[in-house]
Amino acid sequence: MTTLSPVESAGHRYVLTLGCPDTTGIVARISGFLAEIGGWIVEAAYHSDPDNGWFFTRQAVRADSVQMDVDELRARFESEVVAGLGPETEWRVSDSAVPKKTVLLVSKEGHCLGDLLGRSYRGELPAEIGAVIGNHRALEDFTERMGVPFHHVPFGEDKAAAFEELRELVDVHNPDAVVLARFMQILPEELCDHWARKALNIHHSFLPSFVGARPYHQAFTRGVKLIGATCHYVTSELDAGPIIEQDVIRIDHSDSVADMVRQGRDIEKLVLARGLRWHLEDRVLVHGRKTVVFS
Amino acid sequence: MTTLSPVESAGHRYVLTLGCPDTTGIVARISGFLAEIGGWIVEAAYHSDPDNGWFFTRQAVRADSVQMDVDELRARFESEVVAGLGPETEWRVSDSAVPKKTVLLVSKEGHCLGDLLGRSYRGELPAEIGAVIGNHRALEDFTERMGVPFHHVPFGEDKAAAFEELRELVDVHNPDAVVLARFMQILPEELCDHWARKALNIHHSFLPSFVGARPYHQAFTRGVKLIGATCHYVTSELDAGPIIEQDVIRIDHSDSVADMVRQGRDIEKLVLARGLRWHLEDRVLVHGRKTVVFS
Amino acid sequence: MTTLSPVESAGHRYVLTLGCPDTTGIVARISGFLAEIGGWIVEAAYHSDPDNGWFFTRQAVRADSVQMDVDELRARFESEVVAGLGPETEWRVSDSAVPKKTVLLVSKEGHCLGDLLGRSYRGELPAEIGAVIGNHRALEDFTERMGVPFHHVPFGEDKAAAFEELRELVDVHNPDAVVLARFMQILPEELCDHWARKALNIHHSFLPSFVGARPYHQAFTRGVKLIGATCHYVTSELDAGPIIEQDVIRIDHSDSVADMVRQGRDIEKLVLARGLRWHLEDRVLVHGRKTVVFS
Amino acid sequence: MTTLSPVESAGHRYVLTLGCPDTTGIVARISGFLAEIGGWIVEAAYHSDPDNGWFFTRQAVRADSVQMDVDELRARFESEVVAGLGPETEWRVSDSAVPKKTVLLVSKEGHCLGDLLGRSYRGELPAEIGAVIGNHRALEDFTERMGVPFHHVPFGEDKAAAFEELRELVDVHNPDAVVLARFMQILPEELCDHWARKALNIHHSFLPSFVGARPYHQAFTRGVKLIGATCHYVTSELDAGPIIEQDVIRIDHSDSVADMVRQGRDIEKLVLARGLRWHLEDRVLVHGRKTVVFS
Repeated sequence: MTTLSPVESAGHRYVLTLGCPDTTGIVARISGFLAEIGGWIVEAAYHSDPDNGWFFTRQAVRADSVQMDVDELRARFESEVVAGLGPETEWRVSDSAVPKKTVLLVSKEGHCLGDLLGRSYRGELPAEIGAVIGNHRALEDFTERMGVPFHHVPFGEDKAAAFEELRELVDVHNPDAVVLARFMQILPEELCDHWARKALNIHHSFLPSFVGARPYHQAFTRGVKLIGATCHYVTSELDAGPIIEQDVIRIDHSDSVADMVRQGRDIEKLVLARGLRWHLEDRVLVHGRKTVVFS
Repeated sequence: MTTLSPVESAGHRYVLTLGCPDTTGIVARISGFLAEIGGWIVEAAYHSDPDNGWFFTRQAVRADSVQMDVDELRARFESEVVAGLGPETEWRVSDSAVPKKTVLLVSKEGHCLGDLLGRSYRGELPAEIGAVIGNHRALEDFTERMGVPFHHVPFGEDKAAAFEELRELVDVHNPDAVVLARFMQILPEELCDHWARKALNIHHSFLPSFVGARPYHQAFTRGVKLIGATCHYVTSELDAGPIIEQDVIRIDHSDSVADMVRQGRDIEKLVLARGLRWHLEDRVLVHGRKTVVFS
Repeated sequence: MTTLSPVESAGHRYVLTLGCPDTTGIVARISGFLAEIGGWIVEAAYHSDPDNGWFFTRQAVRADSVQMDVDELRARFESEVVAGLGPETEWRVSDSAVPKKTVLLVSKEGHCLGDLLGRSYRGELPAEIGAVIGNHRALEDFTERMGVPFHHVPFGEDKAAAFEELRELVDVHNPDAVVLARFMQILPEELCDHWARKALNIHHSFLPSFVGARPYHQAFTRGVKLIGATCHYVTSELDAGPIIEQDVIRIDHSDSVADMVRQGRDIEKLVLARGLRWHLEDRVLVHGRKTVVFS
Repeated sequence: MTTLSPVESAGHRYVLTLGCPDTTGIVARISGFLAEIGGWIVEAAYHSDPDNGWFFTRQAVRADSVQMDVDELRARFESEVVAGLGPETEWRVSDSAVPKKTVLLVSKEGHCLGDLLGRSYRGELPAEIGAVIGNHRALEDFTERMGVPFHHVPFGEDKAAAFEELRELVDVHNPDAVVLARFMQILPEELCDHWARKALNIHHSFLPSFVGARPYHQAFTRGVKLIGATCHYVTSELDAGPIIEQDVIRIDHSDSVADMVRQGRDIEKLVLARGLRWHLEDRVLVHGRKTVVFS
């Protein structure tokens, strides 16, 4: 394999996302702007959060409907819409023709890696996977079979040096997403900040239940009747970042910890793949400790 | 009980729904109108269907944010927005302070009736239940305990006369919804047309599987691993109207038909209650054989 | 209504449940005994827990297949099977023809009460509901409409006296189940012990997430993507008793706390109804902090 | 990679499955036999179907608890248990240490293949995948990357010859399972019979809805609110064989056919993987058009 398969596509689109303090008239302002430039809106989603007074929107327009490139669109959106919305406004205009970049961090468990590399190989993932970095070599063979570079960064006594090496290996790709695909090292605070809103983790429990180590053992001990997985942004507080996606499956008394581990893999894979897809498609807007997901 | 409990409410709202041929600028036109009248949008949903070229929207605005009553809003919306959208446009402006009216049709199975009357008694249903009409007397006692009038319309040899009586008993309430809550008579075509987009049925299977009589027996014979329920608008083609909501539950080989019937009741109740709620809140837009549900 | 409708039935059965230290030959011993007395087994379930070395079984036999009444069956089962299994063995033989008794404890929230009384009225619940006891009068009218006695026990300054009154009102029914159907008082330790393995609670979260007060507010603050409910036995440790059943529903960023409360009711009702049914049918065996549920 | 990773294992087991006309004393006979040979039962499941009068059981015993090899166990089980149960009895004794063999049939869609080869590579599948056979070359590269032989059998004008070649390529592996992993050719009746109860298909709908070609298009046209997948044994009647497993996911009006195809892949993969696992672990017993699944 020399190139990734083309990403499945709904056509060439520009995607505008925006979050700002809520007030009347924002929708009119945005949709007026889009109408003026002839934008054919293929997806439009809005959310007003009365709890924190914040407004969120995501708009996808057909690129061929507007007579400008993404840079011009970005400039005009900023001057004609964003400028009037106050300094706290967060916004982005992205171009679906520019591939997103992803780097995967792994340890020994290969199910999430295998799922993501398989999707990427088949062209199902809206991103290029630039590299896989493991603190063990267990997944090197599989990664290379799939045609993706693998880097081994051992985490021995000098963890700071290892994290520095990790940072350099990741940052060379200028990634849109850094995926902790069952990576078993806790990122130091400076890396959490450095990759803020880019680093996604999959935790193998239905958070906030069973934070930390060995969540399936915790679930077994507590005797819960469902187990789950959570995809969330990484923050410096362990397993407490904004949740992007969660799901659960039913278990019963006959399931051992090993059974939970086995069945849990399937839900981990799905939850991570969904969360990553939404992140890459600019469907996830973060505000405080929570997300708005326009799925 | 002399009065229904007050409906749970998110405050006084006007709700605008609209469906029309898709073209650029519709969103701008609607949101511009709402901005002009000072409308504080609390919910906004859009859908463009590229398959049939139709555009759908639902907007909920705080009633106290616009300086007019619902009649004036309706008139201005028609002249300032709808008039420019072509003759096929379907639209509605409703006022959450005007209670919706519902009539329930039943036979002998009481679980859906019990669920809906219980919700109504507790003020959880955004509607007044004006009457329950049964082709048997089995549910008369329960209905009257809940303080709702019950009418018995026996369906003997002269079905046409019975349907005529039914029609009169229903229409006196000028209902927004006519709910076939496990009513075991098939409505004649003229009643389907008369109550078009108002008559909701709950079918005890995951349609289009197991149309017609005894769906749980059909499911048992086929050996499916999930059973379901479907809430749909009634049309003259049996169990083929536009689907509003569906859901399923897992069964296994140990479940007899009686077990399916018992467990199925819970999913029937939920699916009907959700579908009816969405209908009453103007969240369901019909186009052809399909629905758009802004839930 | 003067009597409850007859309970739905799979026919007259004797149900044997047993838990004991695991060893080879237990199944042979039990099934040999049942074969010897001519028992027609209609349900048989087994579980060996390798983690704690415990064996669990539940057997349902057609009553008309054995030539003895339940007392004789109990005596023979004890002498011919249980006696050889060691002093820790816990067992029970029950007769499906002897109705189970239930008492419901409530506060102001009526959805679980309404669901259970509705099921009871329609003969769907394998129990008689002897009384409803509320620390408020909010649900008195509904309860009496359904033909069930309601007792008001106010919980003012002298809580100990109130709990003593509660205990007396409950115990007069010699209940098989005491259901805290959104009862908002925490039972004192002596009542937890007194009703051990008989008192069931419904908690409106997916435990162990969101223990204690206002779980939907906690869920909203944390930004979870699913909300749930848990039916568990009451123990003196708050919301930490053995879990019988749990389930979840999907929410998203557009759901306010009020939306969660509204949608959560449906899952609370279902989870409590399933858990209570399994308890009443002797399908739940407790060992330590966990349950085996032969559903 | 020169060998597949070892299969995840709960230890060395003998698994006995049996189906026969129901009568009293069967459980006692089987459990008596197992007790006599010292069998430590780690899983025991029973089902009596009152509808067709058939009895089903599956027993897993620790291999090290009985002082004999699988051939002796098979012989003694036949003479001491099966012989007394009538000529219609179907039974099997298998040894978890003997790897099951699987052959996969594919066309162009790679998601099910990718999922199964990934599981196999990681040692999560209780089978060796002997070969992948495709009627196109689209999946050859991926298959070979995973270290599994790929055979191309074009289906041109002479379909009979192609099926004959397919049969020979499959049968050389003497497989326990022949998996149609989105294989787009309909097996002729003689191959259905030849591989009866060994050939598993994944159909991309919730059967019996949407039999045949393009089920997602059918689902889109009908406007269903859930889409599903079904794993079933192949029989000569199209998409009508005994169902092993089904599951569904929620969609809504915003999902195009392409969206359904994309999301449907995830449920197809899961349903096929679960169904295949249960088949390989002798958890699926077939009787008539239905299955008993001791999952």
